[in-house]
Amino acid sequence: MTTQAGTIRVLGISGSLRAASTNTKLLYVAAGLVSSGVVGTGVRLELWHDLGLVPPFNEDDEHVPPQPVRALRTAISDADALLIATPEYNSSIPGQLKNAVDWASRPYGQGVLRAKPVAVVGASVSAYGAARAQAELRKALTTAGAQVLDRELQVARAHEAFGPEGQLQDPELRNGLRDILADLERTVRPVPKVA
Amino acid sequence: MTTQAGTIRVLGISGSLRAASTNTKLLYVAAGLVSSGVVGTGVRLELWHDLGLVPPFNEDDEHVPPQPVRALRTAISDADALLIATPEYNSSIPGQLKNAVDWASRPYGQGVLRAKPVAVVGASVSAYGAARAQAELRKALTTAGAQVLDRELQVARAHEAFGPEGQLQDPELRNGLRDILADLERTVRPVPKVA
Repeated sequence: MTTQAGTIRVLGISGSLRAASTNTKLLYVAAGLVSSGVVGTGVRLELWHDLGLVPPFNEDDEHVPPQPVRALRTAISDADALLIATPEYNSSIPGQLKNAVDWASRPYGQGVLRAKPVAVVGASVSAYGAARAQAELRKALTTAGAQVLDRELQVARAHEAFGPEGQLQDPELRNGLRDILADLERTVRPVPKVA
Repeated sequence: MTTQAGTIRVLGISGSLRAASTNTKLLYVAAGLVSSGVVGTGVRLELWHDLGLVPPFNEDDEHVPPQPVRALRTAISDADALLIATPEYNSSIPGQLKNAVDWASRPYGQGVLRAKPVAVVGASVSAYGAARAQAELRKALTTAGAQVLDRELQVARAHEAFGPEGQLQDPELRNGLRDILADLERTVRPVPKVA
């Protein structure tokens, strides 16, 4: 549990399995913003690297799932918030990311996504920056009961968006990512009301 | 290739991995309609059973994919048309079905879904019969270049929709499925124009 003074743990999930994934790069940029204190001093962002291990969702196994699913559920449960970076394949969500969301959402009424603050961002080589995948992912997460931020970050032409050190070149995108992280922090730890 | 007189081969793909999947049942009903000659005498429907073997889509491997992906691509390539039955998870497509669509759509410009006639149907326990999953799946298939029929079949309250012998109880749904199969046949083998 997060207390007022405690550290907020954000779990970063990249929806791409590519070795040089721009969505994974985007999460590293977010981790850099967090560790440099630009967002808030009490935020920690850790990347989850096991998406490729998640088996195909099968409702028959939702009560006694394979080990990688138990690990996924624990990782989400232990986090105060999620930051998910999604690519877009055929105008929609990557299947493997959807497998993870569906396992995490079940069994019905006991899913670890319930009431979990989640921010969605995305990068793609197109001019749209995975906008449709982000919208569909927000819809699925909302159905799963997550507290989804009504924001998105479209990193378009992602193959040109990052510098040689992995930095996000466009300052507007950097600021957008910073603002989303700040929103996520405020969602987890609301500013106390002045009496 | 299908000739005017040849048999049309329809590949049935169930988007659910459940043992007692109602979407798989729906495909068996379709196979029964086909084999009883209700649709057309030159149509054969075979179910594909290997969805669970498909690995997570990874664009890094699209040119030299794992064996189950090569088998998927061959099965789709060898079929004249597809009939896909999809459940709906968290208001959207099952991840594993999306993994299959994404593998089949790549590499860009060479995907086996290109110009392939595809019909989408769906069953779910809800009152909506997987309508949102069907819509999202049609969108993804269209982006992949498939020739997607602009129809759907919503089998709602799917747990009550089938009889003890697996028959679809509602005659309207049976007729709807028959009409979709007939549409698929016409798409593959257009009625010759009378001179």
